[in-house]
Amino acid sequence: MPAASGTARGGIDLGGTKIEAVIVDPRSKVLGAARRPTPTTGGPRDVVNEMLAALRDAAKLAGVKPAELLGVGVGAPGNVDPETGAVSNALNLPDWGGSYPLAAQLSRRLRTGVFVGNDVQVATDGEFRLGAGKPYKSVLGVFWGTGVGGGIVLDGKEWLGRGGAGEIGHTVVMLDGRRCPCGRRGCLEAYAGRAAMEARARKLKDKGAKTDLFKLMKKHDRPRLTSSIWEAAVRNGDKLAIELIDEAVHALGAGIGSAVNLLDVEAVVIGGGLGLRFGEPYVARIAEEMKPHVYVSQPDVQMASLGDQGGAIGAALLAQKARRTRASG
Amino acid sequence: MPAASGTARGGIDLGGTKIEAVIVDPRSKVLGAARRPTPTTGGPRDVVNEMLAALRDAAKLAGVKPAELLGVGVGAPGNVDPETGAVSNALNLPDWGGSYPLAAQLSRRLRTGVFVGNDVQVATDGEFRLGAGKPYKSVLGVFWGTGVGGGIVLDGKEWLGRGGAGEIGHTVVMLDGRRCPCGRRGCLEAYAGRAAMEARARKLKDKGAKTDLFKLMKKHDRPRLTSSIWEAAVRNGDKLAIELIDEAVHALGAGIGSAVNLLDVEAVVIGGGLGLRFGEPYVARIAEEMKPHVYVSQPDVQMASLGDQGGAIGAALLAQKARRTRASG
Repeated sequence: MPAASGTARGGIDLGGTKIEAVIVDPRSKVLGAARRPTPTTGGPRDVVNEMLAALRDAAKLAGVKPAELLGVGVGAPGNVDPETGAVSNALNLPDWGGSYPLAAQLSRRLRTGVFVGNDVQVATDGEFRLGAGKPYKSVLGVFWGTGVGGGIVLDGKEWLGRGGAGEIGHTVVMLDGRRCPCGRRGCLEAYAGRAAMEARARKLKDKGAKTDLFKLMKKHDRPRLTSSIWEAAVRNGDKLAIELIDEAVHALGAGIGSAVNLLDVEAVVIGGGLGLRFGEPYVARIAEEMKPHVYVSQPDVQMASLGDQGGAIGAALLAQKARRTRASG
Repeated sequence: MPAASGTARGGIDLGGTKIEAVIVDPRSKVLGAARRPTPTTGGPRDVVNEMLAALRDAAKLAGVKPAELLGVGVGAPGNVDPETGAVSNALNLPDWGGSYPLAAQLSRRLRTGVFVGNDVQVATDGEFRLGAGKPYKSVLGVFWGTGVGGGIVLDGKEWLGRGGAGEIGHTVVMLDGRRCPCGRRGCLEAYAGRAAMEARARKLKDKGAKTDLFKLMKKHDRPRLTSSIWEAAVRNGDKLAIELIDEAVHALGAGIGSAVNLLDVEAVVIGGGLGLRFGEPYVARIAEEMKPHVYVSQPDVQMASLGDQGGAIGAALLAQKARRTRASG
């Protein structure tokens, strides 16, 4: 398939749990994809090695050599410097508290340009330009997973603020409420983030609540309560799991409703590990839970349509944009 | 002062309590100002008559005839159609539930162009272009008064969404919390809006709480608890007033903090009847109450600097903009 040479782009979604890599054609059609678990020990170099391996696997499936790619985009957690491609403060990644020159290291090894953006912003851009947000000019992306991330597109352009915009997970839905993993109180993420929900489930189990959540976790040999474990538990009628997911949906309705009252966007697109796993019926439930809070007109509420690969496909757009900038510069 | 003829503009802030009119020069300097109470009975025609009277008083002080003004801008509550200048659903104004052609009626009587915008957006634009927001490119305006209104400027442009953006008063700060005058639960305005605070004070007094709030109201012959009555009560050490104002400041910290986490603006400008009356020390307190919730960097928090006339001065900018559009159109 040498047709892909010189026109294909790479995209990597660097998550706390997995690394997803894709190769796409000029129309963002996926030509090859691969996935690796994110290392939980070691440091940035080990993470980079797995990113390289995932991208090379995807390139092989697409029949293209990494050096022939127009460029590679990366969606990364933590603080991203979009100019240099350095990533700092990525606390979900092993030993990545400091700054690491991610773009430079990947670029040297892949022998093509590498462009790094914030993971949530990249996923929002993907859904806006290629996915469920395509019919709209203003979109709020909500990524319901380990945390609750948000991305904002206004009048066709991403709004980044001073670089940190979109932190919908730290909307206060309950004054002086539950402690959030971020250390603050009453944040949406304290009720709806998977990490907070796991901590809450563990605490309630220790206090005597009945649940099969942790049995399922062991049975499937997972280090934590993944989205599929939550989904399986709810499907099996596990009371604690149902209660915590209901609470999350209730909090999401308030938090997203508040954001809509402020921004008055045309559409909300819901993705993330839990969002995609629980799917359409829960997206509809979140839309219902928003209604009692929405003061402006209710926007359309859609499920993210690019699926698990959305982050990587969105990241690949960075390479396209960067290339265009270069060509005209 | 015939110098003002042909270059001066008019601005009217139509509030639920008072009508403020100004005449400004091309640099937005106030040449004349007048104020009238908003009629509490009658209908839109009576309100229009008072608006005309206030504008004519201001024009007389400025030494200019209304027909010589470049145009007149109006900041109005309710739903504004910026194209036609019709105002509907202005529930704080007498018998104004339906739609009324405000711009057309005023224009006919004043014999100059009249341009109508949303009161909060007009006040935000005034602070952004002429007041405390001037040094910044992205600003969140928060107007703490009868309700809690918000206006958003991003990258130098007002963000209106589908027309209703900025409803920060209906941010949910307490899931399933106190009933808001809007009928919803847990809104910021249910804790910090002057109307909600008055209802709360009355309820607590009826339950036996001690307070001089209503005595002060009668003494000053006011139909409701105005900002100056709240301020006087707090200054006198009235426990209930202090408790409710503290609660409002606490809720404002959470609601504004949430908005900042989403928008990551450079600055927050705080105005409105209570904001201006309680002034700098309370703006500083609100900034402190934001800090425990702000996930991004804390923005600058400033008091609105155009004062009581800010709404009218901001409204006068509408005439400037509209004129420019016409000239180039």
